[in-house]
Amino acid sequence: MSELRFDPIRRRWSIIATERRFRPHEFSRPGPDAPGDVGACPFEFGKETSTPLEIFAFAKQPRKPNTPNWQVRVVPNKFPALGIEGELSREAVGMFDRVNGIGAHEVIVETPDHHRPMADMSVEEITLVFKAWRERLTDLRRDIRIRYVLIFKNHGREAGASLFHPHSQLIATPIIPTTLVEELNVAREHWSRKERCIFCDLIHQERSFADRVALETDRFIMLEPFAAAFPFETWLLPKAHSHDFALCTDQLLEDLARLVRDFLRRIRTLLDDPPYNFILHTAPSPHPRPGQPRYWTTIEYDYHWHLEFVPRITRIAGFEWGSGYTINPTPPEEAARYLREVTADEGS
Amino acid sequence: MSELRFDPIRRRWSIIATERRFRPHEFSRPGPDAPGDVGACPFEFGKETSTPLEIFAFAKQPRKPNTPNWQVRVVPNKFPALGIEGELSREAVGMFDRVNGIGAHEVIVETPDHHRPMADMSVEEITLVFKAWRERLTDLRRDIRIRYVLIFKNHGREAGASLFHPHSQLIATPIIPTTLVEELNVAREHWSRKERCIFCDLIHQERSFADRVALETDRFIMLEPFAAAFPFETWLLPKAHSHDFALCTDQLLEDLARLVRDFLRRIRTLLDDPPYNFILHTAPSPHPRPGQPRYWTTIEYDYHWHLEFVPRITRIAGFEWGSGYTINPTPPEEAARYLREVTADEGS
Repeated sequence: MSELRFDPIRRRWSIIATERRFRPHEFSRPGPDAPGDVGACPFEFGKETSTPLEIFAFAKQPRKPNTPNWQVRVVPNKFPALGIEGELSREAVGMFDRVNGIGAHEVIVETPDHHRPMADMSVEEITLVFKAWRERLTDLRRDIRIRYVLIFKNHGREAGASLFHPHSQLIATPIIPTTLVEELNVAREHWSRKERCIFCDLIHQERSFADRVALETDRFIMLEPFAAAFPFETWLLPKAHSHDFALCTDQLLEDLARLVRDFLRRIRTLLDDPPYNFILHTAPSPHPRPGQPRYWTTIEYDYHWHLEFVPRITRIAGFEWGSGYTINPTPPEEAARYLREVTADEGS
Repeated sequence: MSELRFDPIRRRWSIIATERRFRPHEFSRPGPDAPGDVGACPFEFGKETSTPLEIFAFAKQPRKPNTPNWQVRVVPNKFPALGIEGELSREAVGMFDRVNGIGAHEVIVETPDHHRPMADMSVEEITLVFKAWRERLTDLRRDIRIRYVLIFKNHGREAGASLFHPHSQLIATPIIPTTLVEELNVAREHWSRKERCIFCDLIHQERSFADRVALETDRFIMLEPFAAAFPFETWLLPKAHSHDFALCTDQLLEDLARLVRDFLRRIRTLLDDPPYNFILHTAPSPHPRPGQPRYWTTIEYDYHWHLEFVPRITRIAGFEWGSGYTINPTPPEEAARYLREVTADEGS
């Protein structure tokens, strides 16, 4: 079984994923930047038994699980980083800490069409993907062992995708991930001092500066962060304060889908179909954690869900890994201007 | 001029590197995994004027700067992330923070031979590279604006190398990088409570467990960290406590070179010449920082320099970036065993 291990010197968790265990000669560096052999893809109609048993699906007509004619299909990852079976156990190993690998690792197959990246899907199709995210978030939070559900999308080889067929993923963890803990702490501290949401403050300030606003609709805003880590890194926030993606209405998800589609087409035109990651930041599981700060006491006020979009056209090299800094050759003010001015392609 | 920008929500610095400014269509994804055109390489004998003016060099015979017949040559990076000219200024921008891009960005050309990666250099040649590191570290620390000198090596395209010719780099920053601050704080806290160095504790514990010890010599130990972030991530530490790489004797650097060469050959055999990063962690600049915790009061006791070696055969994808966790499919105990047992190749 996989395990989570904590390094007391650099204070980082690493998942030692034994289900994915590789011997040295088995590391294969190239991944898919091209569609590859559709016949070998486990996410096609008729290949439903080549994945682990289906967890959830949307379909136009009633159907049996693990048969074709689905619209969006959620299955366990075949090589999961964390597994759902077992009791959570925590132990010390000398000066180290170990937690067994309880959690979940699921794949959201976004469309039956191997050749239909999210930028080419219809607004209705993208809405359905976000509804599947909302559904899985709500369901997994019922499990008291799970503290956080991290939903993300890797598009393209350089962004870590190991399959070409359009999909997103989720990893549910028994510990709130470091990045989120830090963000939650910042938001809570800001609220406790000012009784204002730091993300609402950000939206307010950036709308008045205007030069880092990439796109804006009635309900959402897309910003280039002031200290963008990557060229064209973009944050998408709902303008109306809300701490939890799971509370989004159908209408809001449809508006979100329309904006994401517009954005993905603009970025495809500007950067020639770049590899990218898309990460959902939302509130953690509402279960109390014994002996831990109770994020949920003010979280409805202090936290603000958002999506972070990261094109992967620069690299995390020695300096970045060693320093915790990033080097970004594109000022976010310029990236925002390019995004505003480009004419989105019409898709295929 | 470049600038360092701080994001108050995720508490990260990013260097907006305007010297490297790219327009969207200028991002070129492929880098060098092959030797490429030697004639176009700026680091060959006779091409000394195609780099900025030389800062330092080792040579067998006396020579004029910026002429051939050097052994190791240090030059400014042609597209520096940070620049040495100007006064340091700090300012607030709304809710954000900005520091102008004062620092240094240098390239250590490790050999005149385009086709001679470090694994194929002689012990004497590698020793000279480490002596150049020590020299630059000592020299740059005289500049009171500089808080830290981060020395690193990117080998191979996937590890971020943009030139094939064997080289390492340094970036000197006006702020101690986040990763180091966290490590320094952990080390100081451990010392203040126990009056023991946490790295000495680690060496002591791991020698007694033995299963994560990859290689060991009289003066050095190479460990697979318990929570290794990447397959075959390896830390190299001097056994005798020392906080500062700049204090290494010539003899110690020669021993280090011999071990690094052995290690690089083993890893090349095991992982088929993987891309990798090599990062030096050492004490920060000894200048007092007004109003800051004074690292230097106990740093001679609490900190312990080391090298971190990171093969880049897995990717930092959406989950890793979004969580701050890493997923490592190779248990460090297995990696250590492979490293102990493999026969290092003889080089070319």
